Amino acid sequence: MFILISDFSKHVGESVTVKGWAYNVRSSGSIAFLQIRDGSGFTQAVVAKLAVDEAAWQAAIETTIESSVIVTGTVSAHPKQAGVFELQATAVSIIQRAEEYPIGKKEHGPDFLLDNRHLWLRAPSQWAIQRIRDGIIRATYDWMRDHAFIKIDTPILTPTACEGTTELFEIDYFDDKKAYLAQSGQLYLEAAIASVGRCFDFGPVFRAEKSKTRRHLIEFWMMDAEAAFVEHEENLRIQEELVSFIVGRVLVGHMQELNILERDIAPLENVKPPFYRLTHVEAVKKLRELGSNISDMDDLGADDETKLTQLYDKPIFIEKYPAAVKAFYMKPDPTDPTRVLNADLLAPEGYGEIIGGSQREDSYEALLARIREHNLPEAAFAWYLDLRKYGSVPHSGFGYGLERLVAWICGLHHVRETIPFPRLLSRLEP
Amino acid sequence: MFILISDFSKHVGESVTVKGWAYNVRSSGSIAFLQIRDGSGFTQAVVAKLAVDEAAWQAAIETTIESSVIVTGTVSAHPKQAGVFELQATAVSIIQRAEEYPIGKKEHGPDFLLDNRHLWLRAPSQWAIQRIRDGIIRATYDWMRDHAFIKIDTPILTPTACEGTTELFEIDYFDDKKAYLAQSGQLYLEAAIASVGRCFDFGPVFRAEKSKTRRHLIEFWMMDAEAAFVEHEENLRIQEELVSFIVGRVLVGHMQELNILERDIAPLENVKPPFYRLTHVEAVKKLRELGSNISDMDDLGADDETKLTQLYDKPIFIEKYPAAVKAFYMKPDPTDPTRVLNADLLAPEGYGEIIGGSQREDSYEALLARIREHNLPEAAFAWYLDLRKYGSVPHSGFGYGLERLVAWICGLHHVRETIPFPRLLSRLEP
Repeated sequence: MFILISDFSKHVGESVTVKGWAYNVRSSGSIAFLQIRDGSGFTQAVVAKLAVDEAAWQAAIETTIESSVIVTGTVSAHPKQAGVFELQATAVSIIQRAEEYPIGKKEHGPDFLLDNRHLWLRAPSQWAIQRIRDGIIRATYDWMRDHAFIKIDTPILTPTACEGTTELFEIDYFDDKKAYLAQSGQLYLEAAIASVGRCFDFGPVFRAEKSKTRRHLIEFWMMDAEAAFVEHEENLRIQEELVSFIVGRVLVGHMQELNILERDIAPLENVKPPFYRLTHVEAVKKLRELGSNISDMDDLGADDETKLTQLYDKPIFIEKYPAAVKAFYMKPDPTDPTRVLNADLLAPEGYGEIIGGSQREDSYEALLARIREHNLPEAAFAWYLDLRKYGSVPHSGFGYGLERLVAWICGLHHVRETIPFPRLLSRLEP
Repeated sequence: MFILISDFSKHVGESVTVKGWAYNVRSSGSIAFLQIRDGSGFTQAVVAKLAVDEAAWQAAIETTIESSVIVTGTVSAHPKQAGVFELQATAVSIIQRAEEYPIGKKEHGPDFLLDNRHLWLRAPSQWAIQRIRDGIIRATYDWMRDHAFIKIDTPILTPTACEGTTELFEIDYFDDKKAYLAQSGQLYLEAAIASVGRCFDFGPVFRAEKSKTRRHLIEFWMMDAEAAFVEHEENLRIQEELVSFIVGRVLVGHMQELNILERDIAPLENVKPPFYRLTHVEAVKKLRELGSNISDMDDLGADDETKLTQLYDKPIFIEKYPAAVKAFYMKPDPTDPTRVLNADLLAPEGYGEIIGGSQREDSYEALLARIREHNLPEAAFAWYLDLRKYGSVPHSGFGYGLERLVAWICGLHHVRETIPFPRLLSRLEP
């Protein structure tokens, strides 16, 4: 019977067949150990020369690292380690014998590993990261369903920049038109809330930014959510509930992966609402105490974020930034119109921003004034302004960067390992 | 208590508050009817002049179409229609009074509606389509989870064309490099199966094709799935199970939406495994009987597909096409190497192709020969060839076009209504 390694616990004492790859191999005179991976998990097949026929024994000792193999045997519980199972082999065959595998046990530099990303993905750490990424995606879909958010797929090819930045990839569209790759689907979601009430998108976005930091990718995945009749306070509650739900799901479903990554889970177990909250004013004060020379009306830099998050044991909202450093569509705080009803959510342990969100300007006149102040092309935003003419409602939204979320939850230093095929300033391959 | 209209059935006789949009309004001397939509559903608020205060009555009669409103009242079951509820209003207020709404009850042409897509999305038919689209997406995620497929996000920015076509959008990447927008993530998924066993992607793809048919979009969403150790026969079983599951989910969860779209559900109720199967040879024979002049080694055209699917009452696999008309990575049929182990899945009722899939070539030598025959750049495919050097395994996959699936399940003539913001040859806005 062909089964997955992840189902071994249900088949102790039974004869089963596993199909997979040998990720490690060793043998002595009469016994061979094949460490097998099948995508669902890892196991060791013990091949005793006397327990198998000659062809199987030959196959076992000829198996090279990363050869694909089929092994039949009896599932046994590991004599010492609880929850670990082995396969006492009765038959072994090689599907395809691998050439000498380029990724060895010695340390490789990041360039070598990225050049071989199509193979490096097989490493247990990379398997663990992709499984956790998948878990985060699924947790998001589930939470959205349970809270009446409908998926609305926003376009990638857009005629203008959402936030008026110049860091856009340009494309020749038809009829001599130019198109730009989207950096966010937010404005489109704002249109859709008047149809479906609450919605989210979740797809790739692009930033043609010459940044070479551990937090930047050229192509990355973003989840934007938008909800009608949600104001600033509720917007923050939605975010802390979603993030806590995601982290909780990973802790329940992905302990094996977190162990492989040697992730200290204590900080993750702490991730429960309510999160800490600082106003921008309070954050600037604290940063100055820490020696930063940030001024009252500055945005927070990455270093500032790192410093702040090292002070706290769970995520922190920094809210009510100066309007001047934030996007045109954010609604001013009625108690201080120089500031907006926004918040950035910073992950602890030095990770920094994982979510940006705000209540949106819902007044036609105020929005038009902001568009003019920002020198944005009014005609291009005519449809967006329409949303304030025909049944405008208070509404808010936010977006998380998937790779930053994965990096934080997995405890990774650089976002490049969080996405299957990273696109960096100097890397478009494989 | 603020609740969603979709929860009315649980609150009959209670006083509740609804926030939404008035999509239709009429009043006589002493009674006003506001038809309200809140994203979750539709209801009618009955406002009796004598039952509300003067301000509420004024609000009710001043409410214009698409004004945003808050209505409090008692939920009552509709006197005649089972499952329909009304709100006997006790308070009404307008959040924002809409200007005269440009989309009226008269017939508008498709260009006008697409120019106003940001508003047209609010129409009940468009609400229904987006909700069904969401249901199809969620059903796919659920099925994949239940069958051990992990999401692997494949890149959009790629250095070469997957299938060597010239219908690609080109981008200036950094360092004078060119990048192209992906048409499929399949090749990348083939790398990932050696890590996670089974995987899928689900994201936007792009075709710079000057096609102006009812089945084509410039930007559309594709779900590709790939599985190690799955051969041709099992590949078809996976597809028919997935499609049947999706259709079943829509029939259970989206009857209200199907009713709004006046979709005849009898053909959908028929969608259960096994689907019909024809070889390409059989399909050509049948098409010739129907008067087509298709020749033995031709691919099927859209008209051919339409004709064929009108003969059957559920989806049809057409398998084993001539190798010459299909992609280089498909594995030849061992019983006839001029044909490949592929299948296209055609939706019934004239809809045509919704899935394309195949077993993949897993021999290094055979794949290299195919790459050379197709004059593809060998160096660009070096990493893809590597997958056949290091533990190659039999494997198969397929991809569905989301918009075609939505069009079929919703019974729509044109794919342009299936995506929130369609990108067409002459349309990049809004």
